[in-house]
Amino acid sequence: MAAILFQSPNPYRNLNTRAYKTKVSRNENLAKLQAGYLFPEIARRRAAHMLKYPDAQVISLGIGDTTEPIPEVITSAMSKRSYALSTVDGYSGYGAEQGAKQLRAAIASTYYADLGIEEDDIFVSDGAKSDISRLQVLFGSNVTMAVQDPSYPAYVDSSVILGQTGQFQKDVEKYGNIEYMRCTPENGFFPDLSTVRRTDIIFFCSPNNPTGYAASREQLTRIVQFAKENGSIIVYDSAYAMYVSDDSPRSIFEIPGAKEVALEVSSFSKYAGFTGVRLGWTAIPKDLLYSDGFPLAKDFNRIVCTCFNGASNIAQAGGLACVSAEGIKAKTHHTFGSTFLAGSWDVFSEILEKTHVVTTPGSGFGPGGEGFVRVSAFGHRENVLEACRRFKQLYK
Amino acid sequence: MAAILFQSPNPYRNLNTRAYKTKVSRNENLAKLQAGYLFPEIARRRAAHMLKYPDAQVISLGIGDTTEPIPEVITSAMSKRSYALSTVDGYSGYGAEQGAKQLRAAIASTYYADLGIEEDDIFVSDGAKSDISRLQVLFGSNVTMAVQDPSYPAYVDSSVILGQTGQFQKDVEKYGNIEYMRCTPENGFFPDLSTVRRTDIIFFCSPNNPTGYAASREQLTRIVQFAKENGSIIVYDSAYAMYVSDDSPRSIFEIPGAKEVALEVSSFSKYAGFTGVRLGWTAIPKDLLYSDGFPLAKDFNRIVCTCFNGASNIAQAGGLACVSAEGIKAKTHHTFGSTFLAGSWDVFSEILEKTHVVTTPGSGFGPGGEGFVRVSAFGHRENVLEACRRFKQLYK
Repeated sequence: MAAILFQSPNPYRNLNTRAYKTKVSRNENLAKLQAGYLFPEIARRRAAHMLKYPDAQVISLGIGDTTEPIPEVITSAMSKRSYALSTVDGYSGYGAEQGAKQLRAAIASTYYADLGIEEDDIFVSDGAKSDISRLQVLFGSNVTMAVQDPSYPAYVDSSVILGQTGQFQKDVEKYGNIEYMRCTPENGFFPDLSTVRRTDIIFFCSPNNPTGYAASREQLTRIVQFAKENGSIIVYDSAYAMYVSDDSPRSIFEIPGAKEVALEVSSFSKYAGFTGVRLGWTAIPKDLLYSDGFPLAKDFNRIVCTCFNGASNIAQAGGLACVSAEGIKAKTHHTFGSTFLAGSWDVFSEILEKTHVVTTPGSGFGPGGEGFVRVSAFGHRENVLEACRRFKQLYK
Repeated sequence: MAAILFQSPNPYRNLNTRAYKTKVSRNENLAKLQAGYLFPEIARRRAAHMLKYPDAQVISLGIGDTTEPIPEVITSAMSKRSYALSTVDGYSGYGAEQGAKQLRAAIASTYYADLGIEEDDIFVSDGAKSDISRLQVLFGSNVTMAVQDPSYPAYVDSSVILGQTGQFQKDVEKYGNIEYMRCTPENGFFPDLSTVRRTDIIFFCSPNNPTGYAASREQLTRIVQFAKENGSIIVYDSAYAMYVSDDSPRSIFEIPGAKEVALEVSSFSKYAGFTGVRLGWTAIPKDLLYSDGFPLAKDFNRIVCTCFNGASNIAQAGGLACVSAEGIKAKTHHTFGSTFLAGSWDVFSEILEKTHVVTTPGSGFGPGGEGFVRVSAFGHRENVLEACRRFKQLYK
């Protein structure tokens, strides 16, 4: 008999080859995935390190997690909504799958004023990661896709899971059938579109995770033009838009014509420290059409109604407070930015061992990340400064 | 030129055949879906009726929505968690994708004591509907599935979306490649398994939505045996388990051997009126293996980590209060049950027009529902009684 096929023995160590097995075949797309999803793997290594050095002052600049308390104007709105659920007048059951009308309207007017995005173009979600996956379910297995390289791993992994890709090719560290748009210091972290193959879908995140680079208006105009020429759809991830401090666009819809070729995924996670509260949205213009003229938003609406039951009403109350005048004034300002240092998993381990700082190996974001580690600058200011001191000590 | 293909003109009425179209093909699985998802369609008809009769006392017994306030021991836990997010000590960012360790442990010990389901077998979710869809992503497009007929429409619709089915066959009102297990008054709403074709996946909901029937221990033993002989996987939906008042099992894992062939999806929606708060879980035993011996739970863990970022931390605080000794004592008791009356969409319309009571046409739950309407008994007690009076008046 063949040995059982999985390698990680714990917590499944008691299984043996004589165990009962169903006759259901494992989804072959899942088998294509390499190692664990990046961030749980880092959390695992961090936990192991803390076991090994229980007294070390570990600083976590790995996962780009928010650290600062949420302004009270927002938490008190959530607190009140919670309490109200104990009253006859304040109780409510199922909400609209697409989100509360008032919140959809507020998102449209706050983030898309004069950009032609309307209340019913907004789909409120439990966060960008969930919506990326719902978008992949929408597109199905017969589309081709392009990603910035390096990029947030959920784009590629969800594409693999949905069966859009070929096998992982170890020699080039890429999945077959995905177009990796290389973003390097040499091209200013914006891809050379003249070398990019046409795909159905283009994932594009700006400011980019992990490089931190925000594309300029001229660059975004080029990518919209590129999509239009190719008949592609851009999935624009603007989760970090609030960190734009120059005149770079905060929404793809600032670019003329973008509504015919792009949709936008965004999130309250970094706007308001909502990584644990869970709230985001996707904006899909009515002008975005499939090749047969069918509006993409109509199918996404069907996905949302069938596969989702709306974001928590308490989180939505918090979202509404975020975009109120008071909420915008009180907004938590998290530091953002990520620094790329040379190295990858080996350097990750060296940094962790010698400085007790958790980073993220660049290779986790795609082959273009090899040779870098990402140091998230989310974190308490004093921790970021302390980490810098330790790096200087290590690499002096 | 062909006319544009979609039929519902609003809100897309300004589009025309000369509009720019991308070159991306619409996902053909979405095109297979019939009409809208059931419940939004009912909400639409209800709204239209209220416009037509603005002064009518409409009673909604259509969507099975909760109506009673949540006990304060639960909402105050959520309220406190919300406020704490404004403090340095109480703030937390990303939680574990699988849910907070403490809540996973509490769910395991509250609902699965002595059933061999452990803390790490529990995946906390934002509700059963989302998890059904994530399970379909897990299974992929190459599995076959069976459903009770009638049943909750999300099973079939998500199966269609993932590409597991053929086209909808209008003559029999069924999708190709799905095994419909007929549940009728004649067979006591439990399928005759001797006529059921082998499938990879069997969706089974008990107490069942919409029939209200709870399968007995002997019947569940038979279906576990059936799955074992066929090497099938049962997706057991126990969202209504709290309404079991006799000795019918509340979990599939009460049946010996079920852990080798079944997983269980459940929810706080009806336990605690959390339809708007959004919290549920899926329990996947370590003994549940694919044909190659790979544990299903390991792949589901990967799906959860890639496609989801955990349930709202505030909702999870509420869940923890639900399963505390105080929370269990204070539990809201919603009326449950659904009555099947003869008729379908036409009778739905007649009832709505003549009594202003919103029901659900049985055909929305599958061809086996034709000839029935579902009258949800979720609702304020006085409303349910008033609806009964109106029915008696209409059908006297």
